[in-house]
Amino acid sequence: MGSLSQGNHTLGDEFTKDVISSMGPKTDPRLREVMSSFIKHVHDFAREVQLTTDEWMLGVQMINQAGQMSDAKRNEGQLLCDVIGLESLVDDITYQAAVKSAGSATASAILGPFWRHDTPIRENGTTISFNTPKDGQVAFLHGQVTCAETGKPLANATVEAWQASTNGLYEQQDDAQIEHNLRGKFVTDAQGHFSFYCLRPTPYPVPEDGPAGKLLRLMDRHVYRPAHIHLIAQAEGFKPITTQIFDSKSDYLDNDSVFAVKDGLTVVFEPRKNDPQAEWDLKYDLSLAPVSSN
Amino acid sequence: MGSLSQGNHTLGDEFTKDVISSMGPKTDPRLREVMSSFIKHVHDFAREVQLTTDEWMLGVQMINQAGQMSDAKRNEGQLLCDVIGLESLVDDITYQAAVKSAGSATASAILGPFWRHDTPIRENGTTISFNTPKDGQVAFLHGQVTCAETGKPLANATVEAWQASTNGLYEQQDDAQIEHNLRGKFVTDAQGHFSFYCLRPTPYPVPEDGPAGKLLRLMDRHVYRPAHIHLIAQAEGFKPITTQIFDSKSDYLDNDSVFAVKDGLTVVFEPRKNDPQAEWDLKYDLSLAPVSSN
Repeated sequence: MGSLSQGNHTLGDEFTKDVISSMGPKTDPRLREVMSSFIKHVHDFAREVQLTTDEWMLGVQMINQAGQMSDAKRNEGQLLCDVIGLESLVDDITYQAAVKSAGSATASAILGPFWRHDTPIRENGTTISFNTPKDGQVAFLHGQVTCAETGKPLANATVEAWQASTNGLYEQQDDAQIEHNLRGKFVTDAQGHFSFYCLRPTPYPVPEDGPAGKLLRLMDRHVYRPAHIHLIAQAEGFKPITTQIFDSKSDYLDNDSVFAVKDGLTVVFEPRKNDPQAEWDLKYDLSLAPVSSN
Repeated sequence: MGSLSQGNHTLGDEFTKDVISSMGPKTDPRLREVMSSFIKHVHDFAREVQLTTDEWMLGVQMINQAGQMSDAKRNEGQLLCDVIGLESLVDDITYQAAVKSAGSATASAILGPFWRHDTPIRENGTTISFNTPKDGQVAFLHGQVTCAETGKPLANATVEAWQASTNGLYEQQDDAQIEHNLRGKFVTDAQGHFSFYCLRPTPYPVPEDGPAGKLLRLMDRHVYRPAHIHLIAQAEGFKPITTQIFDSKSDYLDNDSVFAVKDGLTVVFEPRKNDPQAEWDLKYDLSLAPVSSN
């Protein structure tokens, strides 16, 4: 025999505690800490705004669509996090922890969804721009990688760079660019120096055809990123640094759609003299914290 | 000229306020409310546990994998929410709002990922079990749909039911079941009555091959759901109800892997007499709140 049921309880804090305490004794302590906080904040959010089933289902669809649009060349789940500032925040948390343990080091910034793991190593002094567009301005980027503790130059460090072309597209988004265009990895010489030709970067929109673009439109926000070049610097025995450098003359420095701009990361391109290959010059040094200082 | 940059600020509450206030003036007020709370809680979570870039990237991969496993027959994003109790919580929030506006009504429960929009209408008194397994026990489920305010029977209401077979699989997961097996929609007669034969439900595991299964393993939790039948009742002019009824004799009533069990939703199957077609009998009535009482 069943009955007409008259549910009149509410799933309050006790429910959240029940969900958290359902984790078994073999749960990794860090995972337990992370999931406990995540479950609590997700539940608090749902209660705070009295989230309805229909609204929640829109969120589920957004997550599923993000996954369905993602592949080896595109990470829409990451982009969704980026437009709500989450990647920038966790990057800062990770960076601050490195600073605390190692003193000063080059400021970091988010990886972004266009990095590739198979970027080719190129010779210092060569170019990464193989399809230079008519409206592209070439810059010579050069600098030194040093130890954040001793200031000594680091030989055999790698500096990896990638950037969008003037049409706003990275090579994997654009059939008109050759593979690995505007992308290269450089190994520092005995004095820690690296150098290469690239484009002076230009602002571009993040992809608008997925859920992140839809969310930006719903939030009445623009999709643009200020002009920047992505860099990763690594050396054996040192903590790698992932960063972006921003052209101080660019639009959108104050309202980057993915919130990656930090004060320490803006750079000034200077006119380059006596070099037919480049209009602009940028000297940019990087300082890495030793792993041993942890 | 660039410089070695020494970032030493932290992205604190001001950063979160900046992200929230980046929403433009044309943002829908409800979306602004939901996203403001969501962004605040996600940022607070990241700060509270000092989430690192690597940990966050594991979460991004989980989201992308969920989307990639989802299709018309499977919703892994939904299942991920289910195992942290979110669907159950938003269902309760939605239900409590309906109760407040309309007085008593049948308690609701989560839709789950196995509902189909194209469930066939079948005749009252017929069966939904077309591939009854050897270990299956047949039950006769019957009841009345009434108005929650007046108690009057509702004619031409629909009662939709779906359930897993004894192997734990819904028909869309199982090639051995015909399409729409253990699934049917019934229209109430002039007295609001509906009836059909089905299986007495049995516990089963949620799919373990995706990120939700992985998360459950990481949290040292089992994957089982207690024995239940899904029901949706609808009538013109009334708020639809989505619910699950749970066999009071089932295992896992106290630790459902998706937290959908509520007190008001357990039912007792009685032995059925003088019916060669069924061993068990379940009378279950449903009460719907009129839309006008909003």
